[in-house]
Amino acid sequence: MSASSANTASDALTYDKAGVKYDQVDPVKLLAQQSAKATAQHVAAHGFPEVSASRGESAYVLDIGHAYLASIVECLGTKVLVADAVYRETGKSFYAAIAQDTIAMAVNDLITVGATPLVVQAYWAAGGSDWFNDRTRAADLISGWKAACDVCKLSWGGGETPALAGVVEGDTIDLGASCVGLVQPKSRLSLGEKLAPGNAIVLLASSGIHANGVSLARKLAERLPKGYQTDIAPNEKSGQTFGEALLAPTTLYAPVTEALANAGIAVNYTVNITGHGWRKLLRHTSEFTYRIREIPPVPPVLSFMQREAKLDNTEAYGTLNMGAGFALFVDAKDAERTAHIAHTCGIEAWVAGSVEAGRKQAIIEPIGVTYSADDLKLR
Amino acid sequence: MSASSANTASDALTYDKAGVKYDQVDPVKLLAQQSAKATAQHVAAHGFPEVSASRGESAYVLDIGHAYLASIVECLGTKVLVADAVYRETGKSFYAAIAQDTIAMAVNDLITVGATPLVVQAYWAAGGSDWFNDRTRAADLISGWKAACDVCKLSWGGGETPALAGVVEGDTIDLGASCVGLVQPKSRLSLGEKLAPGNAIVLLASSGIHANGVSLARKLAERLPKGYQTDIAPNEKSGQTFGEALLAPTTLYAPVTEALANAGIAVNYTVNITGHGWRKLLRHTSEFTYRIREIPPVPPVLSFMQREAKLDNTEAYGTLNMGAGFALFVDAKDAERTAHIAHTCGIEAWVAGSVEAGRKQAIIEPIGVTYSADDLKLR
Repeated sequence: MSASSANTASDALTYDKAGVKYDQVDPVKLLAQQSAKATAQHVAAHGFPEVSASRGESAYVLDIGHAYLASIVECLGTKVLVADAVYRETGKSFYAAIAQDTIAMAVNDLITVGATPLVVQAYWAAGGSDWFNDRTRAADLISGWKAACDVCKLSWGGGETPALAGVVEGDTIDLGASCVGLVQPKSRLSLGEKLAPGNAIVLLASSGIHANGVSLARKLAERLPKGYQTDIAPNEKSGQTFGEALLAPTTLYAPVTEALANAGIAVNYTVNITGHGWRKLLRHTSEFTYRIREIPPVPPVLSFMQREAKLDNTEAYGTLNMGAGFALFVDAKDAERTAHIAHTCGIEAWVAGSVEAGRKQAIIEPIGVTYSADDLKLR
Repeated sequence: MSASSANTASDALTYDKAGVKYDQVDPVKLLAQQSAKATAQHVAAHGFPEVSASRGESAYVLDIGHAYLASIVECLGTKVLVADAVYRETGKSFYAAIAQDTIAMAVNDLITVGATPLVVQAYWAAGGSDWFNDRTRAADLISGWKAACDVCKLSWGGGETPALAGVVEGDTIDLGASCVGLVQPKSRLSLGEKLAPGNAIVLLASSGIHANGVSLARKLAERLPKGYQTDIAPNEKSGQTFGEALLAPTTLYAPVTEALANAGIAVNYTVNITGHGWRKLLRHTSEFTYRIREIPPVPPVLSFMQREAKLDNTEAYGTLNMGAGFALFVDAKDAERTAHIAHTCGIEAWVAGSVEAGRKQAIIEPIGVTYSADDLKLR
C-alpha cells in the first residue's frame, strides 16, 4: 500500500507495524490456489462442475444441477484476545459477541455469491480442556452462537471442540466456522457477470470494527496508558471503553440478502468489507471505476482508532471498514428499494455511489482518496 | 473407562494421565448439542429439513430434495506437534503426511453417512506469518493436501490461512478441514436404519496411529530416553523410529466407499475408528451385540505403544485403532465382496465379525475383551 505509507506520519501505527505481513503469506497462498485449482477436474468427473468464477471469490461454488452449492471455512482470528483481555480486566464476558463475530465471518462471505446459508459447523479449538471449566464463558459462547444462527436462519449442524494444548495458547480458544448454503433459484448467483457501469453501490452499516483491523487495535491498546479501559469519547456522556466498543458484535447481513431475494431484487455483485477496508471495493476482476459520493458516519471506535493511531484517510479507509461493512451492487432502478429493505431489516444503508466505465479505481470523493488496482492484491 | 483402570498397572500411561480430560469437555458439548438441535427448525422452514438421525453422528445431513447434503468440520489436533518435533530433530518434513491426516479426519467422517465427498476447504491457522517463510514445510503441506484431494476425488475449494500469533502457539499451525458432499442416490444414506442382526462387520486396515491417541504418544516420547528417535523394532532390519512411524499418514477410505457404491453394495452403517478405539463399534444408538472373531495384525507403532505404555488390551483397543481404521456393516451375503473391493482399492480388509441380537456390547473374542454401553458416551 504505497499510497498510504507516503502520506502517513512516521509514528503512525500501520498494519505492517502491527505484525501482519501480507507479503509473507501471499506467495504460499498463491501456490495453494494453483494446486487447489488443479483439483477442479474431480468434481467435474462427479457431474458437479465447479463455477470457476468463484475461485478467488469469498465462497466456493459447485453446480449441482437444480442449484448451486456454496461452501466456506472462516475464522475469528485474534479478536478472541481482546475478549480474553477485557474478561480478565473487568470480569465481563463478551464470548456471546465473539461467537456472533465468528459466524459473521463465515456467513457474510458465503452470502456474497448469492447463497442462502443453511448449515454452520463450529470449530472451537481450546488451548486445553480447562477452557471449558469456566462455565460462564462457555455458556456465553454457546448462547451467542445459537442466537446468530437464529438471526441467519441457520441450522447449527455440529462441529469440533478439541482441546489442543501445545497448538493453541493456554487459556484461549481458536474459533472458526464452516458454512454451507444453496443458491436457489440459480439466477441468484452473484459472482459479478452482471456488474456493469451504471450500477448503484449501496453500502450497509457496520457495527464497529467487526473482526478486521484487530491486530492494529491490540497494538494501540498496548500504547494507551489505560489500554482497553480507555474512554473512547471522554467528552460525551455515553462513555464507552475501547475494549467494549471493539467487542460490539459484527453485523450479520444474511437477513438483508434473503429479504432482497424475497422482494425480487437482483443483486449483481456484493463485497464483504473486511481485511482490506474499502480497497475491497476493487475486488471484482473487471476493469471499472467505483465512485463513492456519500460515506456513512464513522463508528466512534473507528474514529478513535484513526485519531490515536494517527492514520490518514487513505490508511484508515484502506484498512478498516469505517462504517460500511458490506456493499451491494444493484441496478440503479433498484437502489432506493435496496436501501429501504435493509432498513426494514434493522440495518442502515446508503445509496453511496455508482459503477462507471473507466480504469480500475475506487474514488472516495468526500475524503479525496483514490485506491488503484495496485492497492489490492487478493488473488 | 472403569474396566481398564482396574486392569491397568499403576505406572501405565493412561489417556487421562496424558492430559485429555473427556469429563471436562463433555457437559459443554452436551449443552452445545442441545442448542444446536433447537436450530433445526430454520432449515425446515427453508424447505430443506435436517435428517435428525444424523445429529450426533459423524457428519450432519440435510434433505435437499434430489439428494442429501452432508457437511463437517474437523481438525488434525496435536499430531502437528509430532511433525514439528521430528522436523526439528531430523530436518525431515512430514507436513505432506499431516496434510493427508487432516483431510482424512474430515473425509473419513463425512463418508460414514454415505456421502460422496466433493469439496474440502483448508483451515490453516499459523502461529505467525513467519510459519510460511519455511518454504519446504509450506510446500509439503500444499502438496500433501493436493495429493489427498486427488485420492478422494475432492475439489479443494479454498480456505483460510490466517496468521494468529497469540492464539496459536509460535512456530506451529492449527490444521483443520471442512468438507461437503452429497448422498446421491438417496438410498446410499448409511445412518444405520438398516443395521440388523446378521450383518457382517468388515474391518479396514489402518496405516498406524492415524491422528488419534497422539497425546498419549507424545507423553510416551517424553518418557523415552531417545524420544521420537527410539527404534520401535530394534530386533528387525527394517528399523523405524517412533516419530517416523507415528507420522505414517492416515488411510483415506473414500475410494472404498465409492467403489462399493459403484459395485451396487449397500452399506448399512459405518464407523470411523478414531478417538475411542474399538469402543466406537458401539456408536450406533441401537441395542445390538457386536461380536468380533478375527482381529487384524497390529501395526508395529501401536504394538510398541501398548508395550511401552504398559496398556492392557482393554485399554489399548479402547483407545487406539490397533490396526482397524474403519468398520463397514453390510449384509452377510455382501461381506466377502466388500473385503475384496477394499483390496482392489489397495486397503486390507477382514470379514471380522457380525452383529447379533442382544444387549449393547462389543465382544472382541481373540483378546477376551468386552466393552459395554457404559464404556462409550459420545452423545
